[in-house]
Amino acid sequence: MDSSQHKKAALIVGAGDATGGAITKRFARGGMIACAVRRSAEKLQPLIDEIRASGGEAHGFAADARKEEDVVKLVDDIERDIAPIEAMIFNIGANVPCSILDETARKYFKIWEMACFSGFLVGREVAKRMVSRGNGTIIYTGATASLRGSANFASFAGAKHALRALAQSMARELGPRHIHVAHVIIDGAIDTAFIRDNFPERYALKEQDGILNPEHIADNYWHLHQQPRDAWTHELDLRPWTERW
Amino acid sequence: MDSSQHKKAALIVGAGDATGGAITKRFARGGMIACAVRRSAEKLQPLIDEIRASGGEAHGFAADARKEEDVVKLVDDIERDIAPIEAMIFNIGANVPCSILDETARKYFKIWEMACFSGFLVGREVAKRMVSRGNGTIIYTGATASLRGSANFASFAGAKHALRALAQSMARELGPRHIHVAHVIIDGAIDTAFIRDNFPERYALKEQDGILNPEHIADNYWHLHQQPRDAWTHELDLRPWTERW
Amino acid sequence: MDSSQHKKAALIVGAGDATGGAITKRFARGGMIACAVRRSAEKLQPLIDEIRASGGEAHGFAADARKEEDVVKLVDDIERDIAPIEAMIFNIGANVPCSILDETARKYFKIWEMACFSGFLVGREVAKRMVSRGNGTIIYTGATASLRGSANFASFAGAKHALRALAQSMARELGPRHIHVAHVIIDGAIDTAFIRDNFPERYALKEQDGILNPEHIADNYWHLHQQPRDAWTHELDLRPWTERW
Amino acid sequence: MDSSQHKKAALIVGAGDATGGAITKRFARGGMIACAVRRSAEKLQPLIDEIRASGGEAHGFAADARKEEDVVKLVDDIERDIAPIEAMIFNIGANVPCSILDETARKYFKIWEMACFSGFLVGREVAKRMVSRGNGTIIYTGATASLRGSANFASFAGAKHALRALAQSMARELGPRHIHVAHVIIDGAIDTAFIRDNFPERYALKEQDGILNPEHIADNYWHLHQQPRDAWTHELDLRPWTERW
Repeated sequence: MDSSQHKKAALIVGAGDATGGAITKRFARGGMIACAVRRSAEKLQPLIDEIRASGGEAHGFAADARKEEDVVKLVDDIERDIAPIEAMIFNIGANVPCSILDETARKYFKIWEMACFSGFLVGREVAKRMVSRGNGTIIYTGATASLRGSANFASFAGAKHALRALAQSMARELGPRHIHVAHVIIDGAIDTAFIRDNFPERYALKEQDGILNPEHIADNYWHLHQQPRDAWTHELDLRPWTERW
Repeated sequence: MDSSQHKKAALIVGAGDATGGAITKRFARGGMIACAVRRSAEKLQPLIDEIRASGGEAHGFAADARKEEDVVKLVDDIERDIAPIEAMIFNIGANVPCSILDETARKYFKIWEMACFSGFLVGREVAKRMVSRGNGTIIYTGATASLRGSANFASFAGAKHALRALAQSMARELGPRHIHVAHVIIDGAIDTAFIRDNFPERYALKEQDGILNPEHIADNYWHLHQQPRDAWTHELDLRPWTERW
Repeated sequence: MDSSQHKKAALIVGAGDATGGAITKRFARGGMIACAVRRSAEKLQPLIDEIRASGGEAHGFAADARKEEDVVKLVDDIERDIAPIEAMIFNIGANVPCSILDETARKYFKIWEMACFSGFLVGREVAKRMVSRGNGTIIYTGATASLRGSANFASFAGAKHALRALAQSMARELGPRHIHVAHVIIDGAIDTAFIRDNFPERYALKEQDGILNPEHIADNYWHLHQQPRDAWTHELDLRPWTERW
Repeated sequence: MDSSQHKKAALIVGAGDATGGAITKRFARGGMIACAVRRSAEKLQPLIDEIRASGGEAHGFAADARKEEDVVKLVDDIERDIAPIEAMIFNIGANVPCSILDETARKYFKIWEMACFSGFLVGREVAKRMVSRGNGTIIYTGATASLRGSANFASFAGAKHALRALAQSMARELGPRHIHVAHVIIDGAIDTAFIRDNFPERYALKEQDGILNPEHIADNYWHLHQQPRDAWTHELDLRPWTERW
């Protein structure tokens, strides 16, 4: 893989939604080899094609980030076949609101497994490589529920609080080893098919910039990755001007 | 069970350590039927005997709070055979520090399962009963790691952050249904055999009140349970005067 | 002043409202000599009379806590004529909401001066005495605005944030010198004439315990003062079960 | 002032130190007319000259930001003579550590007056103009003490907490009116003459990027100003990779 010899890979886990897709494109546009991951590689193909059509480099990977063997293999494969992973963005969410009285053990577990446990697995695997090279960026996507538990959000808030604790613990441990670990709190609806189809009133705010444009989110992730090590941000929030908070 | 007819049960999950034991005794002394739970009921017998010898009522239960069927049966049994559960104190911890680079998936999961998932299971089960009666107190034991992720504490901080999110979400959902959900942040070494045996220097602070007396912790849990519903505390911290924070 | 020889004084600054009055009575009932302060001593007389009628000891003092000379004299007088000050409760608020666009420099200053600066003056003066004796309790009354800035609350939130920073700084500096500094966040309407007259809908919640009973607030302040030094609380919140937060 | 007709002014209050100077240059480089303010205009001249020499536009203003009439005049003058103020950066600090026992009323007041009160005055004045035009950016410089009160830092933490409350209150009030209010928490030593002369050990970290480069701080302020209104950051932190936190 000749062209990649001096290149670096950016691993985007949870590249299936609009935000993950925009981040993938942004890091490719920045000159990195974008490695996009979701459970089905097929569904990633349009994104990969789009990046390649505009001159960027990208690869799609199918992996279940909740499975340790999948994650180990994913990181091994990229490091061996593509390029050293210099940036990892973890972007898997799993929000299904429910009263605490009705929440099932299975769902409480699955939300944590998707939104937090897989973040631990991928973070640990890439951190091992980054530490040995003495540089790298790891960014976790958070939400309002990362900071606040609310009625009917015990499962999601639990997973998101735990993910924030992971990011903060990693930042404190790995910062002195030259790894920049950041946490982005996204507070507001994002311009996605999900919001368009399920929350039409919210989506109507798009005309007045009242929902987050995934490309603008991606620009902030790229900005974090570009920060020199004397001025690292660990946490920032992003919300539309219309959002009540 | 005649004497219990007008009595209420206090369920203490994680009654095996000094703190859980002191809480069990305090709630028994307050006139409640103390139901102490740990994985081995035998080990609880001295605590039960001590409470009974001083005129209190207490029962020991063996249950693995990580197992939904155990928790459901535990709550069913107490409600049917002993008394309505008016207070539940969740006091299971599981702190085993480790670098993020070396942490195993199994341990990361187990710490969460013990310190958070079982808190969800017990909280949900007792909340169902409490809501139907329109009163009750649920107290979760937190730690410094509930508020802050630190190097080598990703697993513990993750579980404790998630437990705090659970407590906060439950408080916001169940407060309006007359259930008082509180979270106590214990910041400092407690006077336990574990600290005595493993941190002798720390334990030496005991002479100058530099480590937490479990009975004083228990007094604060009882204070929370006694608060009238117009003045509920959701969160308080407890630390020795010597503690740096 | 013979009867006071072994007694301790509790200084309550901002004793004019229902909360300050209830705290004054609670500390007198606990066996301390209650020293109540507000700008007009006359208005304190009914409170002093009530305490004395029920067998307690109390004195009223007129002082403007924003004036350094007043505060120094107040503390000197009590220490010389009454008893050593073992507890100080600072309870002055000053919330007048206003858009940031319309807020005057004079009001922004005055709200800070009342709600924060006077807390600094009284805290410093009593801390000097307490440190020399190696014990004492200092409690500051906070509010939701201590934690969160909101539209139209820039002035009040500024003062309350600053007061919380004062309490936290003092706790970290004076804890190791045996002084217990605590901060109580009161989140909700209190049963006062002000709420009754200005927010009748809110006041109607009283019937279902939806507003804070000042006596219950006072019980929590007393609880804080009673905590042994191995288990001090620095911060706790108090709110009615009906409160959204 | 022909060349300025379509230009916008950036007002930097507290342009005297390295950070303020770098921010002034960065906003000038971005095409804005930089209006730098400190108490002595003379001392600003080298900064103004440097910006002009590199093709930028800049003006120096002498004003005492603690004085309402100075601030009103400053904003009036710029709006009338230079250009509409589209960005305001408030960068005045005033940290003089002191034990709470020894802190003077005068110093406690002055630190608040410089680090907070003047931020209120300038913020209010520019907000009035920005709201009438429906756009603008206001950025406040915070510090670790904005989040945490520490021993010997009661005065500085009080002022910084209050400034943060101001920024948060303004953001919540003015966001819906198209004004982006942000707060930057700078956690670490900055590459300044002050650090070089007073903390040589700290300054020696510069070689390994262990102190903040003012230009990198400035890049982040500019990034905040550039954020489109669907993805605004209210708060971010900046610290060197070596910093313990």
